[in-house]
Amino acid sequence: MTGETVILAYSGGLDTSCILKWLLDQKYEVICVLADVGQKEDFVAAEKKALKIGAKKVIVSDVKRSFVEDYIWPAVQMGLVYEERYLLGTSLARPCISVALMEAARQCGAKYLAHGATGKGNDQVRFELCAYALQPDLKIIAPWRNEEFCRRFQGRQDLIAYAQEHGIEVSAKPATPWSTDANILHISYESGILEDPNTVAPSSLYELTVDPLTQAPSQPTRLTIEFRKGLPTSVKNLSNGQVFIQPLEILNFLNELGGSYGIGRIDIVENRYVGLKSRGVYETPGGNILFTAHQDLEVFALDREVLRTKQILRDRMTDYVYNGFWFSPEAIYVRKCIELAEEKVSGQVTVELAPGYCRAIARKAAENVGALYNEELVSMDVHGDYVPQDAGGFIAINAVRIREHVRAFGPYKIPKRSQ
Amino acid sequence: MTGETVILAYSGGLDTSCILKWLLDQKYEVICVLADVGQKEDFVAAEKKALKIGAKKVIVSDVKRSFVEDYIWPAVQMGLVYEERYLLGTSLARPCISVALMEAARQCGAKYLAHGATGKGNDQVRFELCAYALQPDLKIIAPWRNEEFCRRFQGRQDLIAYAQEHGIEVSAKPATPWSTDANILHISYESGILEDPNTVAPSSLYELTVDPLTQAPSQPTRLTIEFRKGLPTSVKNLSNGQVFIQPLEILNFLNELGGSYGIGRIDIVENRYVGLKSRGVYETPGGNILFTAHQDLEVFALDREVLRTKQILRDRMTDYVYNGFWFSPEAIYVRKCIELAEEKVSGQVTVELAPGYCRAIARKAAENVGALYNEELVSMDVHGDYVPQDAGGFIAINAVRIREHVRAFGPYKIPKRSQ
Amino acid sequence: MTGETVILAYSGGLDTSCILKWLLDQKYEVICVLADVGQKEDFVAAEKKALKIGAKKVIVSDVKRSFVEDYIWPAVQMGLVYEERYLLGTSLARPCISVALMEAARQCGAKYLAHGATGKGNDQVRFELCAYALQPDLKIIAPWRNEEFCRRFQGRQDLIAYAQEHGIEVSAKPATPWSTDANILHISYESGILEDPNTVAPSSLYELTVDPLTQAPSQPTRLTIEFRKGLPTSVKNLSNGQVFIQPLEILNFLNELGGSYGIGRIDIVENRYVGLKSRGVYETPGGNILFTAHQDLEVFALDREVLRTKQILRDRMTDYVYNGFWFSPEAIYVRKCIELAEEKVSGQVTVELAPGYCRAIARKAAENVGALYNEELVSMDVHGDYVPQDAGGFIAINAVRIREHVRAFGPYKIPKRSQ
Amino acid sequence: MTGETVILAYSGGLDTSCILKWLLDQKYEVICVLADVGQKEDFVAAEKKALKIGAKKVIVSDVKRSFVEDYIWPAVQMGLVYEERYLLGTSLARPCISVALMEAARQCGAKYLAHGATGKGNDQVRFELCAYALQPDLKIIAPWRNEEFCRRFQGRQDLIAYAQEHGIEVSAKPATPWSTDANILHISYESGILEDPNTVAPSSLYELTVDPLTQAPSQPTRLTIEFRKGLPTSVKNLSNGQVFIQPLEILNFLNELGGSYGIGRIDIVENRYVGLKSRGVYETPGGNILFTAHQDLEVFALDREVLRTKQILRDRMTDYVYNGFWFSPEAIYVRKCIELAEEKVSGQVTVELAPGYCRAIARKAAENVGALYNEELVSMDVHGDYVPQDAGGFIAINAVRIREHVRAFGPYKIPKRSQ
Repeated sequence: MTGETVILAYSGGLDTSCILKWLLDQKYEVICVLADVGQKEDFVAAEKKALKIGAKKVIVSDVKRSFVEDYIWPAVQMGLVYEERYLLGTSLARPCISVALMEAARQCGAKYLAHGATGKGNDQVRFELCAYALQPDLKIIAPWRNEEFCRRFQGRQDLIAYAQEHGIEVSAKPATPWSTDANILHISYESGILEDPNTVAPSSLYELTVDPLTQAPSQPTRLTIEFRKGLPTSVKNLSNGQVFIQPLEILNFLNELGGSYGIGRIDIVENRYVGLKSRGVYETPGGNILFTAHQDLEVFALDREVLRTKQILRDRMTDYVYNGFWFSPEAIYVRKCIELAEEKVSGQVTVELAPGYCRAIARKAAENVGALYNEELVSMDVHGDYVPQDAGGFIAINAVRIREHVRAFGPYKIPKRSQ
Repeated sequence: MTGETVILAYSGGLDTSCILKWLLDQKYEVICVLADVGQKEDFVAAEKKALKIGAKKVIVSDVKRSFVEDYIWPAVQMGLVYEERYLLGTSLARPCISVALMEAARQCGAKYLAHGATGKGNDQVRFELCAYALQPDLKIIAPWRNEEFCRRFQGRQDLIAYAQEHGIEVSAKPATPWSTDANILHISYESGILEDPNTVAPSSLYELTVDPLTQAPSQPTRLTIEFRKGLPTSVKNLSNGQVFIQPLEILNFLNELGGSYGIGRIDIVENRYVGLKSRGVYETPGGNILFTAHQDLEVFALDREVLRTKQILRDRMTDYVYNGFWFSPEAIYVRKCIELAEEKVSGQVTVELAPGYCRAIARKAAENVGALYNEELVSMDVHGDYVPQDAGGFIAINAVRIREHVRAFGPYKIPKRSQ
Repeated sequence: MTGETVILAYSGGLDTSCILKWLLDQKYEVICVLADVGQKEDFVAAEKKALKIGAKKVIVSDVKRSFVEDYIWPAVQMGLVYEERYLLGTSLARPCISVALMEAARQCGAKYLAHGATGKGNDQVRFELCAYALQPDLKIIAPWRNEEFCRRFQGRQDLIAYAQEHGIEVSAKPATPWSTDANILHISYESGILEDPNTVAPSSLYELTVDPLTQAPSQPTRLTIEFRKGLPTSVKNLSNGQVFIQPLEILNFLNELGGSYGIGRIDIVENRYVGLKSRGVYETPGGNILFTAHQDLEVFALDREVLRTKQILRDRMTDYVYNGFWFSPEAIYVRKCIELAEEKVSGQVTVELAPGYCRAIARKAAENVGALYNEELVSMDVHGDYVPQDAGGFIAINAVRIREHVRAFGPYKIPKRSQ
Repeated sequence: MTGETVILAYSGGLDTSCILKWLLDQKYEVICVLADVGQKEDFVAAEKKALKIGAKKVIVSDVKRSFVEDYIWPAVQMGLVYEERYLLGTSLARPCISVALMEAARQCGAKYLAHGATGKGNDQVRFELCAYALQPDLKIIAPWRNEEFCRRFQGRQDLIAYAQEHGIEVSAKPATPWSTDANILHISYESGILEDPNTVAPSSLYELTVDPLTQAPSQPTRLTIEFRKGLPTSVKNLSNGQVFIQPLEILNFLNELGGSYGIGRIDIVENRYVGLKSRGVYETPGGNILFTAHQDLEVFALDREVLRTKQILRDRMTDYVYNGFWFSPEAIYVRKCIELAEEKVSGQVTVELAPGYCRAIARKAAENVGALYNEELVSMDVHGDYVPQDAGGFIAINAVRIREHVRAFGPYKIPKRSQ
């Protein structure tokens, strides 16, 4: 492979540093791309490290704004949540990072893309499906699926030995007994001691959120979050009147405030696309707040039957995104359909942040658009435009099928009551 | 209607007391049935009151155990939650109460059933569909859909005047500016000042749960909840070793403990079956804890694709139950299907209760059954029975459609990055 | 109701003629609207008849083009078929006719709408939901739900007697022992002797189609049907080179040719929205041909996963349309979603018409758009852009869940073979 | 691999004969298994051929009864049809054949399974997923995914040359320009000249069905087909009173009679699981008749809402079966759910067979079970247990959402009529 250029999705960590060196050993020219999606990282140091190992070039690509506006905001709008709890922090970052990788590949004329994702995980699928979609002629190098590489590096110790042997700096900080993926939407923790799903995650694990019981403020904070067509457009802190409107600033603010309340922790076992069940712990403070507010507004704003269809579409979209199909015919199609539904989701929700949780406590429609909620219609005190007598016919006709079933097959078995 | 016997779903409150009197005025003989589903009520006083007004007979039917075992436990097993948040506390009580009403009707040879549900609400549908299913020849009297009745009683003041006129005792306690429905699963609040969805519910409203910020314990409590085939079978308080196994005791315990932490409050706008949007505030402490634990175990225990189908079935079942179709061909069918899936949901979940919320923190499969979670398979350190190289082919074949789309319609538009 | 103006959906037949007279008896002023949706009707005679009975005015509204272009074409595009067989000939006509009724109502300042649909059927729902959507202040008069009217007219004989009494002309032609609804898309037959679902419909019943066995041509005819974005744009008769491009002409041609082959007969029991099961016999020659061609092209043209989502949306839309919700939030929303999918459905299908059926025999993509079908890729003789080795990994990873299930719960029970 | 035993799914044709020889070259001991699923094959000759090439043993396994009773009957019961037209003739045979292969493997202590399925097709997936499910330790040999094998045999000519070189008999009959898969349910044709989806299949291709236009009887035949719980239990030829009750005999009879009418031909493009679109022509005479009858009875017998859920489950099951997941957690689960629904599908349907098609013309419920179809209820002449006045309320309440939408967002845009 003498002279062929590889784009390496580089993190600065032990794995991708060793992969960098290993690629150089295979005679590739390696261009490292560090996508800044909001992880806490010393990008300057990482760049220096890669160059020292032998990277031909290091590209640090700040994609934070794109991540928020092109991936996280749409996910909030669509209401995506995997298996009812996971807000897709990693899944959403992958296509965003992939775009940065493709840009670098195009710019540098690279024919290869290498990544450090493992062979048992979802990320390999996500990176590679994006590559197939965006630049189908790019060839993939996945060292953790390479037999020779896997034989050589059977555990962390082999990586450390190799690093030391080749003068690659190894962090003095002892490794945590779990692995971490961080970005502006979340931090995820998995593997190591977390592999036993019955082991409670230690409180020292959490980085984005404080312990709600001991470190959170004793007073709640109320926020008013505005949405237009399902997208967050402003957040107002009702305690002090502060307002945020730029997406990245909104998310930064909500992460910080939500984190200070210990909001957004989950501990789950999830189903990976490759067929495994894995345990993950996640912190998503800002995302949790936005999801809570959007969910409330959506049920408030949408016609019931439109909502039902939207929910079916959302469930399909969630699997597409988790499984790595962000750039696919089906995801692009379903996303357009959901956006059509969201055209009616404009208004504001007041949420209350308290230690460990946030919840919606009030909502109203945007001023200049119509609203399906009808205070007069639902009122117990006025009829509004509703004739109660009609409900009798409604019920009777709905009962036709039930009564026919009784006629044909006998009465419903009344459960013998537990007494 | 001289002499015809009516079964009246009686609550002891102002509305049904006036309805009782009104029915007597129409020359019906009225048998009042009070179903005890766990609401805080002085049943003796209510009985006396009804007899004094003129009821021929009062039947107090304690259906708490049936409510828990025949309705709430199945709902937990099925994972029912309406529009993503409402745990169906009222919806589930209606068929349970209906069975008590039907038993009374049969026992007393009554041909009429009267209830105090309003013409704009869901409960009229639920009561009447149950009646159609269980005793199709029973005739329904719904005074709040009766034109003459509605003309006479245009507001609460008319009811009070009528009550006073007829010597019906009116509670000295001033009415809350909202209405309430309580049972062992929840208390719901709606109407009155809550009709403006942007009005924050006052903290004085909550009856089952304390204010999490100021009144909850400062220490969390951990519980281990066991399920067998999706049904809760025991709860252990890890703080003191206390164990509960009888369903009613489990729910009482979780309500009390959960309530002491302020767990299970929601404030939502929901879509009623009759086409209105209405705002409701709910407290469901024990139900929230059980739902949280079951949800965690289910994703842990079920095969991913079985889970996906189960979720579709659950979403349909949720609407059936909310809409009043508990006794219907479709609900009976879908419930059997979900039970089949739940046969594999056995194990235990550890949840942590903290002020305002509870969350799952650990889980394991039951001893004597198989488990799909495979610590060895998912481990980063051992291959288990998994060949990482296979993933490359998996991804490539999954990419065929994506690549074909690119070939046919050109590359995916890479979003221009927000910078 | 002296002087109030009613718009009557008038057909010229016995029922609506009696209704016209009955409305006049109630002191309404009646404007009859006859919508021409392609039924064989002597509109001049009908107009004369209505005026003679006492109609203030008769409006004959030719909505054939609108019916084809605004309702039938979209239904073909969406692939609507109710309960797998019924092509919605009546369901689609109702909103089209309703628009004509609303136009008349607006034009004449009428406050009432009367129709002759029965109280057990779907059409009352369809007409009235359209009215609620298009002109919510219009009041509905449905004589067949009016107790006094129903008491008076308990059967056909009562109508005839009333007609004769009031000088209303009664057709000399003996009534068929079934009822009929005809338009340019289909004729439906129901009621009377057809109410026994085990009675075979007599061959004399069919009006639009010949007996395929004895009256159809002995040679097949091939047609090439072109679609653009899912809508039919031209039909070419390959036997003689004739080409049709105007929608109404296309449908007329296909009806005539399809009818001459006896194509498009179905005999079904269907589920009405009001909860009954009813038996219907339908002839839809042209619709059957268009549906067959569109179905073939759609599977050919759409990405598999987009198709799956589209099918779910179509199934929902079909119920909306059958149930009368053409003008509803959900139908308008879902229709837009389906149109998005259909943007890729352009090309042509060759169908062969033979006595009693038609089927697709060839298809190709439109010239100027991309095509997902890839002859090279699927070829057994060339690899195209496909690596067979990848399939092994694809299968192995797909097997992970299956193998895990075996590990956890033991091997699949191999069915004991029936020998 | 000296001495290791391989089970080879042997057909007697050129491909698997060459594979047999190639496996022997690799020093395997090869046991050939021919599963008789009803294909027209000289099994004695095939056995002789395999032994002559060097097979250690040949097992001919007659699985026709199992195929019909354990796979085809359930598929009829479930109503499986892929992408709306394909009756899964090949997909259903694969798990049945796999069971025969597994039995042989177990009996012979084989550790390997070889098959001749191509790397682009569905059958490799089906065979191998079944193997993973039934005997997970079996290793798969798929020569058409083996690089060395594929290099050696790049086309049919290479196979013929190899065969001649090794004394393997090559059929004197010239190969058809398409490939064929036959069993008792269907014959499929694909590849070769059929790869151009716009090429009409030549009439000489069809083997199971005559040309309906020129070779079919001029008189129709009526059959009454009985089902119990969704499974066919008897077929009666109304022309001559002949009755069949044994499943294999039923299918043989329907194939022969249906074939004589030219019933059951389809020509489609379908979506393969591996992501390709492929064109197939299929003949499924008996299956088409059974599917037609079952579909009719099911809509007739099932409650509407149960039917809707069943249809969703069926659509999922169809994909499972087509994709090869017959033995999987999800297919086993969903099949049980569908069987629950089918418990109510008992009765008989009369179908009419005519040249080129069959259709349902009458149906009735089984004697001894209840029936939802209610002739009295649906009658236009009697009210039955139905109050027409109720329909007004039913419609009005269903209109609430529609009217609210108008109130909030303005009236529905009435389409400007095409005139």
